[in-house]
Amino acid sequence: MIATPTPAARFARRMDSLEVSTVREILKVTEMPDIISFAGGLPAPELFPTQEIAQAFYKVISEDGRLALQYSTTEGYALLRQRIAARMQTKGIRAAANHILITSGSQQGLDLVAKVLLDAGDKVIVERPTYLAAIQTFSVFEAQFITVASDDEGMDVDDVEHKLREHPDVKLIYLVANFQNPSGTTLSLPRRKRLIRLAERYGVRLLEDDPYGELRYRGAALPPLKALDESGLVIYLSTFSKTMAPGMRLGWMVAEPEIYQRLVIAKQATDLHTNTVAQRAADRYLAENPADQHIAKIRAVYGERCRVMLEALARYFPASVRWTKPEGGMFLWVELAPEVRTEEVLTEAIAEKIAFVPGAAFFANEKEHNFMRLNFSNQKPEKIEEGIKRLAQVIARHGAA
Amino acid sequence: MIATPTPAARFARRMDSLEVSTVREILKVTEMPDIISFAGGLPAPELFPTQEIAQAFYKVISEDGRLALQYSTTEGYALLRQRIAARMQTKGIRAAANHILITSGSQQGLDLVAKVLLDAGDKVIVERPTYLAAIQTFSVFEAQFITVASDDEGMDVDDVEHKLREHPDVKLIYLVANFQNPSGTTLSLPRRKRLIRLAERYGVRLLEDDPYGELRYRGAALPPLKALDESGLVIYLSTFSKTMAPGMRLGWMVAEPEIYQRLVIAKQATDLHTNTVAQRAADRYLAENPADQHIAKIRAVYGERCRVMLEALARYFPASVRWTKPEGGMFLWVELAPEVRTEEVLTEAIAEKIAFVPGAAFFANEKEHNFMRLNFSNQKPEKIEEGIKRLAQVIARHGAA
Repeated sequence: MIATPTPAARFARRMDSLEVSTVREILKVTEMPDIISFAGGLPAPELFPTQEIAQAFYKVISEDGRLALQYSTTEGYALLRQRIAARMQTKGIRAAANHILITSGSQQGLDLVAKVLLDAGDKVIVERPTYLAAIQTFSVFEAQFITVASDDEGMDVDDVEHKLREHPDVKLIYLVANFQNPSGTTLSLPRRKRLIRLAERYGVRLLEDDPYGELRYRGAALPPLKALDESGLVIYLSTFSKTMAPGMRLGWMVAEPEIYQRLVIAKQATDLHTNTVAQRAADRYLAENPADQHIAKIRAVYGERCRVMLEALARYFPASVRWTKPEGGMFLWVELAPEVRTEEVLTEAIAEKIAFVPGAAFFANEKEHNFMRLNFSNQKPEKIEEGIKRLAQVIARHGAA
Repeated sequence: MIATPTPAARFARRMDSLEVSTVREILKVTEMPDIISFAGGLPAPELFPTQEIAQAFYKVISEDGRLALQYSTTEGYALLRQRIAARMQTKGIRAAANHILITSGSQQGLDLVAKVLLDAGDKVIVERPTYLAAIQTFSVFEAQFITVASDDEGMDVDDVEHKLREHPDVKLIYLVANFQNPSGTTLSLPRRKRLIRLAERYGVRLLEDDPYGELRYRGAALPPLKALDESGLVIYLSTFSKTMAPGMRLGWMVAEPEIYQRLVIAKQATDLHTNTVAQRAADRYLAENPADQHIAKIRAVYGERCRVMLEALARYFPASVRWTKPEGGMFLWVELAPEVRTEEVLTEAIAEKIAFVPGAAFFANEKEHNFMRLNFSNQKPEKIEEGIKRLAQVIARHGAA
């Protein structure tokens, strides 16, 4: 007789497709002190404005503790929402405070959008490659991924049109338009305009995830898709994780009323509201410390690190290896010979005290194994130079070029 | 010709059953300054240890900012997890740090458990009445509710057995065993033991939500279900919202490895990890300020407010009205004559500057309309006395007794 499994032995179907993120497991390895890690997606902690943030927390709690420590509204702290709306307006986004929903990091924005929009089996267009934690979140809601090609100008919009014609029921197009994670590429202005028109023609929502938009080191800023959006189809996500501090877990969304209202209901059922203390501290910090000044500092430091990594790649990597040339952000993307598996390269690299993220986790459907993601924001220039040199030796030895 | 709705016009099916919480809308009314509100579920802000918490935030950021402001692990801050595990052991729960997952408030615990366990249509047993935000969260995951009766000793375990026999595929039993929200009742020890045995017999998981367990004003403490759990079927949730400060959004779960691992994956896809700053500040605060001392203070103040409300009810309310006599927590539950609709009573009460939550929102299936939830933690004794007196007049005038 075969025992019937009890209800307790059965997990939700969505758990079948989920596994512990590779990146997360790698981050554990890279906590070893003598490793040069290009693996994480961490901002440089030496740039955190710790004293200013410490002061901001102290002041909002000691002066307004009864409010700063109490439950508050799901939408978020009113003054912070106003401040963000004003910032969004400088980017050409026509947002008022009542379009801004404060989230527990922009990762939560992905969860809420998926909750509000996706039934099991609903189709989501993503790039090859795309942000791995977006793959995870959409998988939780049992999305069906439709992948589109991408190149040095970002998402291939011809391919988007082709896929929309084939699947007119696509529910959502997800992308990181600026300095994409993992590729570092940026969607060109003509493609932005065409993507908006396609979304309108097919009546499909666009989720614009913009954690890195403020981190541009070269070239001219491009308008966010949300700034080009006349029909309210774009939902925009951003975060203070890269321009203030990720440990505060503060992000925001910009959305039109019809969906905004539903996102609020979903957030209420998810975590009631975002940490009140951090919201008030962020607002206080920004009132006393102009954002642009700190962002300029981050741009200078990361821009230098990006340049050093690009130069080191040109100097040390075999000529047959290709990589992207980001104008901002925190990552670049390296393509090795088609037969190489970067999982194996990583094993050898770790023996040489170098870490990176193998690219496979960034593919929603068929995994491609000959890519690696390199982070340049979290290592000092001399370590970047040394690390790329050693990584080049591993690649040469591996015959991976 | 009928236009086909575009994909953008279609929200996820789960949104059909969700509406903005009544309580949330009521909280907006009760922000009027001259109202005596028994509506919210707010801790008394005058008891927040604001200076101590302000100091703790200041210290962890100024001393350890590079870690306190950085991304961290999904499981939570190691020292805080250890501290919580030690506290759990004093309640008879055999937990080590690796059973503790830090959540963004215990509301997030509900979201994560639902994510990991529930497919659309899965059956969840809840009490009549039950915590309304749990109804919301399980509705997001399209659960089918099976409701069981409850009385002064909490969940009716005979009815649970009856329902399990009828529905052996029940996936989860959800309950607040101590000082339930909304009823204020506590599950008796014999029922706790029997509920555990039933869960074992039917192989069904129990979700024990314990936000108020530390807030006992009378009677002897009872062991949590998790302390009686030999087979690992109980998932335990608690929070610092009532014993420290809700605005920090810090809760935790205790779960066995098989499900713990999946909860971590689900949390990673939901918000990466809980606010690092608040976790470290909470740990620092607790290292410097013994929890029991502050909890004793809260117990004294809330216990007095509970007593004052019970006395005022006995003095002013018509003899035909029934209410619960909580031994702890923040709420009690009033039953009016069957034909009364407390939504209508509320309208009249608000005109008299009194607010409460009509009971209907706490019923997962058929709504009952002749109940009200009264909160006693957020009003000073003289306001409680005055408010109950005025509410009694409204009830008498309404003929609601």
